[in-house]
Order: sequence, then structure tokens, then C-alpha cells
Amino acid sequence: MSRVRVHNFIVSLDGYATGENQRLDAAFGDAQDQLWPWFETTHTWRPDYDAGGAATGLDESVAAAWATGIGAEIMGRRKFGPQQGPWENLDWQGWWGDNPVYHTPCFVLTHYPRPSIELKGGTTFHFLDAPPAEALAKAQEAAGDLDVRIGGGPSTVRAYLEADLIDYLDVIIVPVVIGRGIRLWDGLDQLEKRFHVESLTMPSGATHVTFSR
Amino acid sequence: MSRVRVHNFIVSLDGYATGENQRLDAAFGDAQDQLWPWFETTHTWRPDYDAGGAATGLDESVAAAWATGIGAEIMGRRKFGPQQGPWENLDWQGWWGDNPVYHTPCFVLTHYPRPSIELKGGTTFHFLDAPPAEALAKAQEAAGDLDVRIGGGPSTVRAYLEADLIDYLDVIIVPVVIGRGIRLWDGLDQLEKRFHVESLTMPSGATHVTFSR
Repeated sequence: MSRVRVHNFIVSLDGYATGENQRLDAAFGDAQDQLWPWFETTHTWRPDYDAGGAATGLDESVAAAWATGIGAEIMGRRKFGPQQGPWENLDWQGWWGDNPVYHTPCFVLTHYPRPSIELKGGTTFHFLDAPPAEALAKAQEAAGDLDVRIGGGPSTVRAYLEADLIDYLDVIIVPVVIGRGIRLWDGLDQLEKRFHVESLTMPSGATHVTFSR
Repeated sequence: MSRVRVHNFIVSLDGYATGENQRLDAAFGDAQDQLWPWFETTHTWRPDYDAGGAATGLDESVAAAWATGIGAEIMGRRKFGPQQGPWENLDWQGWWGDNPVYHTPCFVLTHYPRPSIELKGGTTFHFLDAPPAEALAKAQEAAGDLDVRIGGGPSTVRAYLEADLIDYLDVIIVPVVIGRGIRLWDGLDQLEKRFHVESLTMPSGATHVTFSR
């Protein structure tokens, strides 16, 4: 049976997964400088070797598990882009360039559906106004025998955890304190009791805490 | 020059250092079952080998640094006991038994000073109504050339971090989600920028994050 997985989900010591004031040049808002550097160290998130900076050490080894066996992703609207309310510019095709890293169907949760966007390399963004279980059923249908990844952000991951629809969650704690933004953990008291939990600090100082079942 | 240190300071993934409803039989309140087990694994916090349970593995190796070179401790009132308001029973001598683990002067911050309590093994509890810097000056005088430990709880540690009076902080993240209680990190945005930060997960699954300067 296929599984529902979350990978590379970064949080601060105070539990924030993103800062306030998300904008076009700062997906993590005011916390961009604190949360983004981890991604810069991985080939998974910086696939162009020639652009420099992307390493292939232990952070990358774990990060790369993100892609394995995934047939579809579900993401919140703010992982696609920072816009709110009705779409004002349908020409803008999201943060992910013309050859996104996903290479699968991606279901973007939004109260404002719009036509799908098919991009290079197998990524198609579909826009869906649906509760978690219904969106998951669509994504599973698209994924076939493969797993579905819940891609974030924090409100989306939290909704799927609250609905107990997640089988694997890899949280990366980076040792920074953000102070404001959107928290992952709210409403998830005693989450650890539903999972087998493992922890490991990478040489970079980032700590993976995995919840699996 | 002597330093000001915090050791063995436990927090949950969501940043709580204690739960709600602290009471005589639950120093961590409703989070007792989630936060206390880590202490049970250490000889430092369970010094009686015959009582069972206290191990001497890696958790203990790091925990034991708590005592080295410490000449005095400052603690919040609720680390001494769960009472609030005026003391109603001066016969009760705190949570720590007649031979407390401290073996130094301990300064208990409270708006309700009371006579000092001298116990076996060198521990004396003094009660002090003073702001952080003033209490620290008293503790440093008592400690002589040795360091002063800020013993907790979270409100006390946070007050000293806000006043930038701490030189070393060892936070232990246990992989549990508590949901309510008292947070350590509030108001400490970008704390990491004032310190050298290291992280390490112990085989037990608890992760130390140290801030030093």
C-alpha cells in the first residue's frame, strides 16, 4: 500500500516553519536568512551544480530521500507562490521555474482554482479546492502505486497530521530562533505517541526528527 | 573570569520547558510524563544507584557537566516548589530532600522572601526578591571564582537570556509535543546570532543544542 510522506520540512527551535511577510523574493518571509541556508547546502534543492553552493554531503543524502518513490505532491498555495485571494496574473507559473524539481503531478490547495499548468520534466500543477482527505484521494489516484508527498507549508502539513493521514514525517530542526511566523506544532499535542520517532544531528548542525509508522 | 551557565535545560519540540498545572507530585505539571523520563536516565538527577533506573551512558556524561566548577545557582521559585503567593508553610523545605543535589548556595527568586534554609551537603537556599543582574551579583559573590548556574525554570532562563547575562546554555530537545505550558524561546528572536551553536543527538534520541561564547 502506498504511503503519505513529508520530507525536508524545516522548523526553527521555536517551532516556526516560515516567517511573516512572505513575498516574491523571500518564500520564508522575514525568516528567509535563517531558514533558507540549509536548502542551499543540498543538491536536491540546488540541482544546478554550475550555480555553485550545492553540496553532496550527509544533508544531501537525507534530503534526496524526498524524491524516491513519489508519484504526486500536495502543497499549500503559498508553496506555489506568495499571492493571496483571486489570481491576478495567470501568466506567472509559480516559484519553481520552467523545469520544476518535482517531475510529478502537484496538487496545489487553493480556494481559487485555475487551469492546470504543464511544465517541462513531468511537473503539472493542478489547482484544487478540497479538504485534506479528498485532495489526498486525487493525488493517490495520480500517483498510482507510488507514494504521495505532502510538500508543505506548515498549515498544510498540520492539517494532514491532524487528520492522521501522514505515515512519515521528516522534520529538520535548524538551530535558529525566529519569534514569529507560522508554527508547525500547534494542536499536535502528544504527536510522538502515534509514531516511531528517531533523531539525528547532521554535521551541519541541522537535526532530523523522523516520525514513522 | 567566571561564567554564567545553564545546563540540562529540557524543552519539547514545540519549545515548552514545562507543562501547565505544576503540582507537588508533578514538577513539570501536565507534561511530567513527557519531560521527566529523560532525567530518569541520568545519575546526576537520580544519584541513588540503589533506587534503580539511573544510567551512566552518554546522556549522563553530558548531564554531569552541570556540576563542574559551579559555585552557586539561581533558580525561579517554582523550581523550589509549586506554591504561589505568600508562603503558607515554612516547614516545607522544597522539592529537593534533606540532602539536595546542589551542594552550593542556591538563590531562589521570589517576591516573598523568607529565612534561608541550610541543608546537608552544602546546599543553602536563600530567598531573594531582585532583578536578574542584582541576583547574579549576589550569586557571583557567593560563588567566588567559580561559575554561577541559572537553574531554571523557563521564565528565569528567558529573563537572563533577554538581559544577555548567559555565557553557556545547553538545551535538550526531547522529541515530544506538549501543546501548552511555559515556552523558553519567546522574545529570543535570533538568539543564535549571539552565540557559537553546536548540536548533537544522543543515542537516547534527546538532542543537545548548546549556545556558548
